[in-house]
Amino acid sequence: MTEVFKQVPLYRFLYFCNEVNLDRVVLDCGAGGEAPPLSLFSEFGYSTFGIEYDIKQVKRAAEFAKAKDQELNIMQGDMRKLPFGDQTISFVYSYNSVFHMTKAEVELSIAEMKRVLKPGGLLFVNFLTTRDFRCGQGVKVGVNQYEQFEDDLPVIHSYYEEGEPDPLFSDMDTLYKEDRVLERIYQGDKIRQGFVDYILQKN
Amino acid sequence: MTEVFKQVPLYRFLYFCNEVNLDRVVLDCGAGGEAPPLSLFSEFGYSTFGIEYDIKQVKRAAEFAKAKDQELNIMQGDMRKLPFGDQTISFVYSYNSVFHMTKAEVELSIAEMKRVLKPGGLLFVNFLTTRDFRCGQGVKVGVNQYEQFEDDLPVIHSYYEEGEPDPLFSDMDTLYKEDRVLERIYQGDKIRQGFVDYILQKN
Repeated sequence: MTEVFKQVPLYRFLYFCNEVNLDRVVLDCGAGGEAPPLSLFSEFGYSTFGIEYDIKQVKRAAEFAKAKDQELNIMQGDMRKLPFGDQTISFVYSYNSVFHMTKAEVELSIAEMKRVLKPGGLLFVNFLTTRDFRCGQGVKVGVNQYEQFEDDLPVIHSYYEEGEPDPLFSDMDTLYKEDRVLERIYQGDKIRQGFVDYILQKN
Repeated sequence: MTEVFKQVPLYRFLYFCNEVNLDRVVLDCGAGGEAPPLSLFSEFGYSTFGIEYDIKQVKRAAEFAKAKDQELNIMQGDMRKLPFGDQTISFVYSYNSVFHMTKAEVELSIAEMKRVLKPGGLLFVNFLTTRDFRCGQGVKVGVNQYEQFEDDLPVIHSYYEEGEPDPLFSDMDTLYKEDRVLERIYQGDKIRQGFVDYILQKN
């Protein structure tokens, strides 16, 4: 082994995926960046596909994949309209990504993830919660939805109350759900972040 | 890679350890069982040591290590009195283990972990919280301390209020702290568990 991926909750998702008897095909929605976690799934023998909105992040992921000599198949695209057929993918995840949209767009994206997922397949998705230190900052664009800044660029962040995402998955089985508040050091400051992670199975 | 370890928070600890410039030597307090996570550290080139109170769990870990052809050095012992000198180990962790004792014994054990840790070294330890579904069940033996049953055997479980473990680490730097409530399926039932995880650095 060569590296540990910082997207730690995806190790749990991989553990769950390994237990399911479906083709090892996985799709990441929001897949780009300098250390794409699809690389971890590739190491475990999965065929990987990724959708990433930001072309710069697509390029960063491509450099990583080239250095590791992996074919991760990360392409520019929009998770609100996934370029895959119904029920074609065994495993779908979106890590620290879907909440960079309004809640209406989040709903569209999750409907898309469920559409492409095979019956019996697994979905991982996580959300920011209202316990996050930044909830309430910036220009309000909806209920617990704000325009904030990330790396000096404006972005939407949607924050969810406890249990608020549950109805999005009322047609799925919840295998695992984790509501977590973490404190860590970020650029010299202690920050508090709130997330809720779901692992779901399609009926 | 061959397997994913179910002790997922230890991937984060490993990520932190890999960033510290100390000898790759790690000690697990409560190290036994059928899939000892020291195996993960061994895969990343760490010299490993483990202490385990239950001789049956020592044997299970030995079978695992033999099958993987790893030298994990897991021995029977008591984390309240660690058989290591002061400041001899770079990285120490105790995962889902220390809370199987009264709070007074937990305090002793953590003092021992801090004693053997090198300056600049890292400690991971986690606790059950009072948000766990079993808090309050069984025979009370102290404040949020109960005798309960695990695999039909009596065990102590100590549960901590929010922030209650913080003073145990007042002489260390908190690099990461995560308070989490998880829901999962266990033997056909949905259960709710509460944990708080710490990653700390010795001054």
